[in-house]
Amino acid sequence: MDNPFFKNHGPFNISELISLVNSNETKIQIDKEIININDLNSAKEGEITFFHSKKYKDIAKKTKASFCLTTELLKKELPKSCITVVVDNVLVSTSKITSLFYPQSINDDFDETATIIENTKLKNKVIFGKNVLIGENVSIGNNCKIGHNTIIEKNVIIGDNCSLGSNNVIRNTLIKNNVKILDNCVIGKHGFGFFPNENKNLRYPHIGIVLIEDNCEIGCGATIDRGSMSNTIIGKNTYLDNQIHIAHNVKIGENSIIAGQVGIAGSSVLGNNVKIGGQAGISGHLNIGNNVEIGGGSGVIRDIPNNTKVMGYPAKNIREFLRDNKWYIKQL
Amino acid sequence: MDNPFFKNHGPFNISELISLVNSNETKIQIDKEIININDLNSAKEGEITFFHSKKYKDIAKKTKASFCLTTELLKKELPKSCITVVVDNVLVSTSKITSLFYPQSINDDFDETATIIENTKLKNKVIFGKNVLIGENVSIGNNCKIGHNTIIEKNVIIGDNCSLGSNNVIRNTLIKNNVKILDNCVIGKHGFGFFPNENKNLRYPHIGIVLIEDNCEIGCGATIDRGSMSNTIIGKNTYLDNQIHIAHNVKIGENSIIAGQVGIAGSSVLGNNVKIGGQAGISGHLNIGNNVEIGGGSGVIRDIPNNTKVMGYPAKNIREFLRDNKWYIKQL
Amino acid sequence: MDNPFFKNHGPFNISELISLVNSNETKIQIDKEIININDLNSAKEGEITFFHSKKYKDIAKKTKASFCLTTELLKKELPKSCITVVVDNVLVSTSKITSLFYPQSINDDFDETATIIENTKLKNKVIFGKNVLIGENVSIGNNCKIGHNTIIEKNVIIGDNCSLGSNNVIRNTLIKNNVKILDNCVIGKHGFGFFPNENKNLRYPHIGIVLIEDNCEIGCGATIDRGSMSNTIIGKNTYLDNQIHIAHNVKIGENSIIAGQVGIAGSSVLGNNVKIGGQAGISGHLNIGNNVEIGGGSGVIRDIPNNTKVMGYPAKNIREFLRDNKWYIKQL
Repeated sequence: MDNPFFKNHGPFNISELISLVNSNETKIQIDKEIININDLNSAKEGEITFFHSKKYKDIAKKTKASFCLTTELLKKELPKSCITVVVDNVLVSTSKITSLFYPQSINDDFDETATIIENTKLKNKVIFGKNVLIGENVSIGNNCKIGHNTIIEKNVIIGDNCSLGSNNVIRNTLIKNNVKILDNCVIGKHGFGFFPNENKNLRYPHIGIVLIEDNCEIGCGATIDRGSMSNTIIGKNTYLDNQIHIAHNVKIGENSIIAGQVGIAGSSVLGNNVKIGGQAGISGHLNIGNNVEIGGGSGVIRDIPNNTKVMGYPAKNIREFLRDNKWYIKQL
Repeated sequence: MDNPFFKNHGPFNISELISLVNSNETKIQIDKEIININDLNSAKEGEITFFHSKKYKDIAKKTKASFCLTTELLKKELPKSCITVVVDNVLVSTSKITSLFYPQSINDDFDETATIIENTKLKNKVIFGKNVLIGENVSIGNNCKIGHNTIIEKNVIIGDNCSLGSNNVIRNTLIKNNVKILDNCVIGKHGFGFFPNENKNLRYPHIGIVLIEDNCEIGCGATIDRGSMSNTIIGKNTYLDNQIHIAHNVKIGENSIIAGQVGIAGSSVLGNNVKIGGQAGISGHLNIGNNVEIGGGSGVIRDIPNNTKVMGYPAKNIREFLRDNKWYIKQL
Repeated sequence: MDNPFFKNHGPFNISELISLVNSNETKIQIDKEIININDLNSAKEGEITFFHSKKYKDIAKKTKASFCLTTELLKKELPKSCITVVVDNVLVSTSKITSLFYPQSINDDFDETATIIENTKLKNKVIFGKNVLIGENVSIGNNCKIGHNTIIEKNVIIGDNCSLGSNNVIRNTLIKNNVKILDNCVIGKHGFGFFPNENKNLRYPHIGIVLIEDNCEIGCGATIDRGSMSNTIIGKNTYLDNQIHIAHNVKIGENSIIAGQVGIAGSSVLGNNVKIGGQAGISGHLNIGNNVEIGGGSGVIRDIPNNTKVMGYPAKNIREFLRDNKWYIKQL
């Protein structure tokens, strides 16, 4: 995964990682340096990955990772080149190791490094309002505007010709060119991801970013969370209306139109030219194809193939929705 | 339409307008000054209007406009007093001409003219918090309060005895007397209106305003967009709860009560004494009568006559809803 | 009710209270000082209470209050120790008397007493961002952080190890230890409670607070209203995702997980270990048991017993929901 912002504090010796996750794998006596943690697909030689659900079996078979956190039951799916580390809870163990590599990715306290833009070199480059704050590791292209009280916290790259409104809070975000963000948005905070735990939940790290491609527009009051192990992406020329919530790891394609108050739950992937009506909700971990239209107020709880119109709760093909609601024309 | 804020840069010669929209109407050789663009209903002699859908046939027949952008198919409906200008895409052409008359109505970048209230003459009249900003062309009546960090951008008129909370952003809005606006609202930005276009959507101008009548209350986190060719209106003594989204051109009547997280899509018109339960959604371009009650969570996708209670998705008469859910009392 | 913030302006003589509510109870000639107004359950000797619905009959029978605002019809349910004051409208009368005892509880104008934190004694104790404001009667524990532009208005107590983000507005709220509040939240404003009245609604006082227990997390853009006659409570270790609306008097239990854009209407009470999916809505005055799971997008309009999974609109037992949507697996 492309991860321009969080410093990798590795490498760590595999023995250190194994002791961190309390694995009983005492047989692993290799003295090997591990350079990173990554998902099954992205992990390379010298890295550790994780495999927690049969769902990812096919990807697991082909992983290039040197080590893999997994369970007794799943370990047989992994290739011989990958040494298995059996643990009680794969995701908790993954969380611990990720936190070790990327300690800055857990904390989402406000950015204390942010300072007024007048004290930075951006003051001569950007047109800005009152009380604009800029954190560390921020770069902004040519011909950009930043509205009043907007806080660009650390780890933000903004391209050319972008217009940001007022009262926004942005961190860990890569914004390309000609993007417009209206007012009162929060972009790049960690997602709603944690391990429930009696009396004290355990947050897991979010090492992904938010990536907003060229020519997008983000409406007022949006919340777009950054990814956990991958990025949250808004594709080129996609427009979001007001009060939209995009959860971590969501990927929205190009040329899509999303109306007010829509919510998209974690890790769902949407194709190009998708149209979503107001207040529709999309559950997590779904695949929504290209050229899909989702009616306002719909609740999507399963994958939708390309070129399909759906509506309803649960959302079904528009033909079925209309048939089921035929009575409707006689009502009121 | 009453349009107190955007300066009309007209008149323009009709030949200039025709060449702007690439019409083939070479036969129009009149040397006439056009003073404004307006909708079919409001347009007067010397103005240009637009007619793009059969739905508006009856209004078209009576228009007073001197010229009308329309299609080959529709032009026969227009009166003889109105010279037709046939174009490929009526709405895109309308957008181009509107932008020519009202160039300030397209741009919704943050207001660079806003300055701290202490530097304006309002400092002696208004009770205000820290970091309050005031743009150009703002007037505020007697006995008003403006909370911390609130930004009154250009083109805002506020009446007497109004109380605004903190962190609001307001522009292009006319607020009457005794209005209360809580915190974190964005009022008066352009609506979610544009022509989808591969790789680069085309925004159309919003020359309307938001009009908030006497004694209204607007809850926290509201987004109320201004109108495109007409105004967005919140009627007298109507109360909005938190996190409500009101799209462009919506008109809400008097004495209405709208609960939290409701969304009303563009151009819908609601009567007086309407009650809407939490999270209900109303599609665009609908007519909702007087004394209508809409149950919480409902999805309204068609007109609702006066004195009707509806509920469900799609919303139906409450009697039908209860009949269809009779089983419900036996569940859980 | 525990009410640490609003100063009680009592006692008042009962004759003064009776004349305020225009009761015809001229027979009450007692010269008695009333020290407070309270609900049926909490009211003690020397206090006045109110009883407006048969629903509360059983509690009414046991009230310890010395006086009770009620109706001709209901008054027979009250114990002999409680002198009845019959009025036309119990809730309006209650509102008037509550306003007399707690005049500060009606007004929710921005807090003019708030000053920059650098001018307060908290500057040496708290890690804070730019432009942080602190009102009167605010205390903050050890090791806390407050982000940029956050406004802690009057009447807020914050415990130890709390992390508040940026652009929040908080008032009348008691926050315990290890609580995290993200950005752009409004917490502690009055609820959406008023008596509808042609041309000028009548707001009733909100003398309750918001109480956020240990280890909670509140996502971006939350609105949590304070209670009217009781408190709004978020139980220990409960996590709220982004854009959630919690209305007045709602009580949420411990270890609960509430996903994005959920709305909970006034006075509903939720148990412990409740899980609520995104965009679900819960109507007012409901009881939701322990270990309840509510599917995303559901509309809950009736009580739910312990250990129940529900889904749908209206929300029904998940078994029924799946049965009714069996066709669903064949669709799309």
